Amino acid sequence: MIAVSDIYRDKHVLITGGAGFIGSNLARCLSGLNAHVTIVDSLIPEYGGNVFNLNGYEERVVLNIADVRDQYSMNYLVQGKDYLFNLAGQISHTDSMQDPYTDLEINVRAQLSVLEACRKYNPKIQIFLASTRQIYGKQVQLPVNESHSLNPVDVNGINKIASEHYHLLYHRVYGIPITILRLTNIYGPRMRIKDARQTFIGWWINQIIQGKTIRVFGDGQQLRDFNYIDDVVEAILLITSKAEAVGNFYNLGAEPISLLELARLLVELTGKGSFETVPFPPERKMIDIGSYYGDFSKIQNRFGWYPVTPLREGLQRTLHYYQENLLRYL
Amino acid sequence: MIAVSDIYRDKHVLITGGAGFIGSNLARCLSGLNAHVTIVDSLIPEYGGNVFNLNGYEERVVLNIADVRDQYSMNYLVQGKDYLFNLAGQISHTDSMQDPYTDLEINVRAQLSVLEACRKYNPKIQIFLASTRQIYGKQVQLPVNESHSLNPVDVNGINKIASEHYHLLYHRVYGIPITILRLTNIYGPRMRIKDARQTFIGWWINQIIQGKTIRVFGDGQQLRDFNYIDDVVEAILLITSKAEAVGNFYNLGAEPISLLELARLLVELTGKGSFETVPFPPERKMIDIGSYYGDFSKIQNRFGWYPVTPLREGLQRTLHYYQENLLRYL
Repeated sequence: MIAVSDIYRDKHVLITGGAGFIGSNLARCLSGLNAHVTIVDSLIPEYGGNVFNLNGYEERVVLNIADVRDQYSMNYLVQGKDYLFNLAGQISHTDSMQDPYTDLEINVRAQLSVLEACRKYNPKIQIFLASTRQIYGKQVQLPVNESHSLNPVDVNGINKIASEHYHLLYHRVYGIPITILRLTNIYGPRMRIKDARQTFIGWWINQIIQGKTIRVFGDGQQLRDFNYIDDVVEAILLITSKAEAVGNFYNLGAEPISLLELARLLVELTGKGSFETVPFPPERKMIDIGSYYGDFSKIQNRFGWYPVTPLREGLQRTLHYYQENLLRYL
Repeated sequence: MIAVSDIYRDKHVLITGGAGFIGSNLARCLSGLNAHVTIVDSLIPEYGGNVFNLNGYEERVVLNIADVRDQYSMNYLVQGKDYLFNLAGQISHTDSMQDPYTDLEINVRAQLSVLEACRKYNPKIQIFLASTRQIYGKQVQLPVNESHSLNPVDVNGINKIASEHYHLLYHRVYGIPITILRLTNIYGPRMRIKDARQTFIGWWINQIIQGKTIRVFGDGQQLRDFNYIDDVVEAILLITSKAEAVGNFYNLGAEPISLLELARLLVELTGKGSFETVPFPPERKMIDIGSYYGDFSKIQNRFGWYPVTPLREGLQRTLHYYQENLLRYL
């Protein structure tokens, strides 16, 4: 983090979705680097925003409650900012199938209006976009690199592709500096664990620290990669500080682990709870992507990023956080 | 056409954008094949719908004036139909940059609501989607086949990708039979020639038959391929009749010609008018795709389609049509 720490000092930073999991960790870090942080978050209960995520930073960051779909607020809020970390999004795959219009409104139309706001009112703002491995859909070969075909398996994946394309277009045509990371599974303090809507690992953590049984869908042999939140925040700050990264997109990723092994590890680390395999619920099966892990050599070779936090250590820190703060997240 | 002619007899067919260029030619053909044709068209003056396109068929097809963005009308209209030819769209590239929200509403949100209407009220309806070569953007290699990467250069291209993905998703997840053609430049009777908003060749025809000067952007060496409308209608009817084509997409295409040669040919065929090269207007340059021609071997090898109408002959027929009916299209 030393390399980028000075770049954000005294800078004016806007974080959409800033009370959510990634956003709040980023906000806390940027505040620690002496940036002036303004958070935009709608605090919709079903999404990831949680005021407690900003605990201890209430006086150091500005929390502006607004929805990114509110075009007029965004027109104002982007003004005078040096950086926009564009993290707001609807990220539930199952929600996107049950209510495709809302996913479209948040993940496409609102993204377009944020870009239009920047084009009209602040075209020099540096934008970071949080994209997702979901755009790859079912993988054709592993690990998945950035040239992999895009075969989205759900509405969410389709809309996130459109969002990426919009960002790249506004860079190419209007010259707005934009950098993109395609994130994989992320875990750590301040993630939503209330239900399985957004991430299954949050739900597993919820269950396991209450001594319950984790349900692993299918045979549990599906591989996934998991990045610890601090490594992700570091990647975001690193990539947004690099002029060479503008107009480009990079995978994050990690060593893969099977879901069964992950469940076993969580039980071992907490010393309670258990796990079992159960058949896929049909609404999940139809949009399941099978095994996935990302090839992160592009960002590693160019900028030196790699996931430094071992899974075991990251999980320990995460479990510790929720054991301390469980009631704030239920 | 013999092969498919019986398939559509007595079938109930809905054509969105059915008063437009492709839609009206398709409607006339299907009506001739004794299908029961209902047309949905908003007849927005800036788009391609023109009541005169249905001249002589007023008693044989049902013209229902409605916008595909009107979800409730679509919910009703898809019911009881065997086929949906989904042709409605905003197709102007420059309009999509100036008003990205409208392009998003028509090309993405309305497509989603048409699919939702089918899923809820008529999941067995057979859908044909008119997609476009615009989704490929700037080509990496020529001719462009269906595996070419998608690098859209404008909002229209981005939104058409989302539309394709939605259609494929609703096929895969909900089992709705859907077939897609990626269309290239199309010309022929009943195209809009009022301005250059939708297709430059229409505008050129307008200019040349009035003895004016065609303006060719750049050096005129850009290659493009042009399909005559009758060949396109045949491809649509063919592909929609093939069970093996469901869940798939196919390029159309033709022998390429440079824009300068095309201009020269138009002048030769009309015996009047002239052409000149002019620099690209900036708003066109920034979204220009350079040379393009499609590899149509996938549809040719599997289903035997190829563009039978020579360019010279197709242009002659087209020029003749507009010489007869010019005032209906100005």
